[in-house]
Amino acid sequence: MNEKAVVILSGGLDSTTCMGIAADKGYEIYALTFDYGQRHRHEVEHAKRVAQFYGVKQHRIVKLDFLRQIGGSALTDPEMEVPTEGVTDDIPVTYVPGRNLIFLSLATSYAEVVGARTIFIGVSAVDYSGYPDCRPEFIASMNETIRRVTKTSQQERPIVIEAPLVHLSKADTIRLGTRLGVPYHLTTSCYQGQSPACGVCDSCRLRLKGFAEAGVEDPIPYVTRQPS
Amino acid sequence: MNEKAVVILSGGLDSTTCMGIAADKGYEIYALTFDYGQRHRHEVEHAKRVAQFYGVKQHRIVKLDFLRQIGGSALTDPEMEVPTEGVTDDIPVTYVPGRNLIFLSLATSYAEVVGARTIFIGVSAVDYSGYPDCRPEFIASMNETIRRVTKTSQQERPIVIEAPLVHLSKADTIRLGTRLGVPYHLTTSCYQGQSPACGVCDSCRLRLKGFAEAGVEDPIPYVTRQPS
Repeated sequence: MNEKAVVILSGGLDSTTCMGIAADKGYEIYALTFDYGQRHRHEVEHAKRVAQFYGVKQHRIVKLDFLRQIGGSALTDPEMEVPTEGVTDDIPVTYVPGRNLIFLSLATSYAEVVGARTIFIGVSAVDYSGYPDCRPEFIASMNETIRRVTKTSQQERPIVIEAPLVHLSKADTIRLGTRLGVPYHLTTSCYQGQSPACGVCDSCRLRLKGFAEAGVEDPIPYVTRQPS
Repeated sequence: MNEKAVVILSGGLDSTTCMGIAADKGYEIYALTFDYGQRHRHEVEHAKRVAQFYGVKQHRIVKLDFLRQIGGSALTDPEMEVPTEGVTDDIPVTYVPGRNLIFLSLATSYAEVVGARTIFIGVSAVDYSGYPDCRPEFIASMNETIRRVTKTSQQERPIVIEAPLVHLSKADTIRLGTRLGVPYHLTTSCYQGQSPACGVCDSCRLRLKGFAEAGVEDPIPYVTRQPS
């Protein structure tokens, strides 16, 4: 029997690359997608197609209305606008407070119940939007917290978060994914939730820059292709 | 303007005592209750009454169907039975994997959005059910993780979890709460979700033992009052 892994799958470029990595390593995959009232919730449909592509064992879609209810981010609050002027050095208004903390907490519970010992998450601290919950220090600390909280802490193998893209640039991620046959045509990245993608939000800009640097054609349609 | 605090409120004895402590310290309270498909979800109604008693600024009730969907605990899986034979040394089947990790993650997000810097949680590692997510090592590690993940990590005051009951016995908690005028008549503890309370599940047993040791009359009705 194959080892099991939980893969946090948004339907975007990075998490879909993680699916490719987990599949390449032979894991039986339990995909976990969050429907948290994000402006770009069409990504949930993309996640379904990606999960189907990889023939996952189970795909759970978790509704988290709470994040929309409390707002506080341009991704969940319809009153706030998504910036389209380019990536800056500050933590942007698209940051959803504690999002990956919440996602990884729920993934830990899921992993413990299905008997997975590995959780994949596609965070990267290179070519990213400056979100604090994408940094390697956060992942390391979260691993420590998980080790203390789960039942398995008394056993030999704790649940461990793997963030295989954390030190990769977007271009490196795309090169790796392309080698692994990752279906980028099924993914979406646009924060504005547009199809064709807007091409000007931070997420579209970072994606386009990555494909350009990798020398690979981005297979999805755009309204406009802005350099980052 | 008063300082704000998020209080995780189940409607049970410990979290209601935390409400009393937060109120006594003068915090403006943002109560957070989780409806996660627990067998004893009548506690949500008790939480509402407690929140009303304390005149909280806001009371959010978060639906988390996911925990019920994945099961894995006697508290969320109707197929599993709640033990009634007494408290043992093992992690019991009523443990909900990662429950406090999930609750604190969502509380962190809530605190960040409303501008609270303190989160109260009523965990105790004395007279408890052996859950790993109630131990002080977990709280300390979670505080470290929160410090790394939240926006406020760059500012002076990070969000901090306070677990004022973590080293208190149940009797000490009840003595403290009684001094603070905590409305224990509004609370419930029964894992079986019964009213009158069953008196024989771990949670009823620990509560009854605590009141007996504190020399205080437990104001709620029981089917039977078993010594722990």
